[in-house]
Amino acid sequence: MAGEPPILLILDLAGTFAFALNGALTAVRIARLDIVGVLTLGMITAMGGGILRDVLIGSVPPAAFLDWRYPALALAGGLIAFLLSRHLDRLEMPINVLDAIGLSTFAAIGATKALAAGLGIGPSIVLGAVTGVGGGTIRDTLVRRIPSVLQSELYAIPALIGATVMVVSIRLGFEGLFMSLCAIGACFAVRMAGVWFNLQAPSPPGRPRD
Amino acid sequence: MAGEPPILLILDLAGTFAFALNGALTAVRIARLDIVGVLTLGMITAMGGGILRDVLIGSVPPAAFLDWRYPALALAGGLIAFLLSRHLDRLEMPINVLDAIGLSTFAAIGATKALAAGLGIGPSIVLGAVTGVGGGTIRDTLVRRIPSVLQSELYAIPALIGATVMVVSIRLGFEGLFMSLCAIGACFAVRMAGVWFNLQAPSPPGRPRD
Amino acid sequence: MAGEPPILLILDLAGTFAFALNGALTAVRIARLDIVGVLTLGMITAMGGGILRDVLIGSVPPAAFLDWRYPALALAGGLIAFLLSRHLDRLEMPINVLDAIGLSTFAAIGATKALAAGLGIGPSIVLGAVTGVGGGTIRDTLVRRIPSVLQSELYAIPALIGATVMVVSIRLGFEGLFMSLCAIGACFAVRMAGVWFNLQAPSPPGRPRD
Repeated sequence: MAGEPPILLILDLAGTFAFALNGALTAVRIARLDIVGVLTLGMITAMGGGILRDVLIGSVPPAAFLDWRYPALALAGGLIAFLLSRHLDRLEMPINVLDAIGLSTFAAIGATKALAAGLGIGPSIVLGAVTGVGGGTIRDTLVRRIPSVLQSELYAIPALIGATVMVVSIRLGFEGLFMSLCAIGACFAVRMAGVWFNLQAPSPPGRPRD
Repeated sequence: MAGEPPILLILDLAGTFAFALNGALTAVRIARLDIVGVLTLGMITAMGGGILRDVLIGSVPPAAFLDWRYPALALAGGLIAFLLSRHLDRLEMPINVLDAIGLSTFAAIGATKALAAGLGIGPSIVLGAVTGVGGGTIRDTLVRRIPSVLQSELYAIPALIGATVMVVSIRLGFEGLFMSLCAIGACFAVRMAGVWFNLQAPSPPGRPRD
Repeated sequence: MAGEPPILLILDLAGTFAFALNGALTAVRIARLDIVGVLTLGMITAMGGGILRDVLIGSVPPAAFLDWRYPALALAGGLIAFLLSRHLDRLEMPINVLDAIGLSTFAAIGATKALAAGLGIGPSIVLGAVTGVGGGTIRDTLVRRIPSVLQSELYAIPALIGATVMVVSIRLGFEGLFMSLCAIGACFAVRMAGVWFNLQAPSPPGRPRD
């Protein structure tokens, strides 16, 4: 996101680092992986959503391949997770906060990019959410876990809310840093409320228990 | 598929709805999902094959992002599955018929689009089949099931037959609605025969039983 | 890879055949598949990495769709695996050697293509490795196995080494067949050493045993 206001760039880079750290930690907990696996899954978690969005809007090579800071931070996050996985468990809440910053920033920036690529309101909102949740979904599929975004917690819904705030405000002509921060704040607030109060999205009625 | 003859458009929209309904039902049966998961998997089942084809032929953004009727019908199918999953079990045969219509239409239209994008006969047939079976394959992978198309039933073979009829007839100069309906009919007939007589594709010789 | 020196073309075609054979054999051993599944997974193993690379560098339709020899050899490899899976177990070492030739050639050629598409050193190395390991990763995910490249053996690391030799030598101005063969040889040597001495990449420290 070169050319963005510095505050958005900082949030975007912080989010990339947090996604890689959290993604690699999740991977280490679920599956037996070697260093290649941990670093790969950290990078996929951090950059997979943006790469998926870029492929779908036809912006290739993806942005993550053109700015060395993103893969460098993703690699650093994965490496820290690889070396310190035992010690990072006690930092769950700071990691959750950083992860929510990543989700919020990715959703807002992703929706903006989709809109700029000429997509309509609906697809831009969806692609904003895909930017936020896509990397974790690919990671979960690779380690053979049903993507957590499909079955538990408020994770996709905050991303959809943030992307909606972003897309609607741009379409109404309220562009700029302030509205970006509002969209990021909306997603962040809903996500953190979900973590704090352990909120769940509704399940199908009358589903058999497992 | 704006600009298609009305009958093809209707079949394509009906197929989209049926794929979303059936795809979301399958997802509900296999995995514990919340509303985000059910709707997401419904939409992926209905639109994933076409999106995959469009990415592979370089036609991005994918057609599914450019015509609101497709995501709207896919969302409706997923929502009905979410609300009524318990009651839809007794409608297995009508849903199978609708699903076969979707498979047939997607395969024929997908092969036509690949050919129009300049691909050869072989790749166009494969991409027609990918259009038909790709969405269900992504869904199965996300809910951690070996894609049913790889292991049982006649599902990919009818799609390949329909796409072959389509591609060969276009290459021979017999374009138009009639040949499209022949291709759709060929796929539909083989698929329904497979459902009715419970036909299976051959398995590797001497494979150990499980 | 039409237009390449004949030796590279031969290695590339041999690698395609070996990947399809080995990929289909792996699929037969892990999952209950019918003929559609075995042939599909053979073709995905052989061509999936190159298709992924081509999508990411924006070279669509992928090269595998434009030269009939690649899908034809992939289909042949899958068919042989389907028919002879019981008898091929004793040929493990020749198949491993052929597979290592495929890995090495794919990594070197993939990195060259990424560089030619204008990507930087880092992304080109990664995309070289993706070309080598991507097909097997997609196959493993589809048959519900954690990709072996993420958890065991030296497989990604030789591919990264081969791609690095290739990219660095091109950037230093040493292009040509000789350097391609050096890159392929470097990957091949490390891979075969890994098979022979059963080398593993390091795992996270203090990980609980399974």
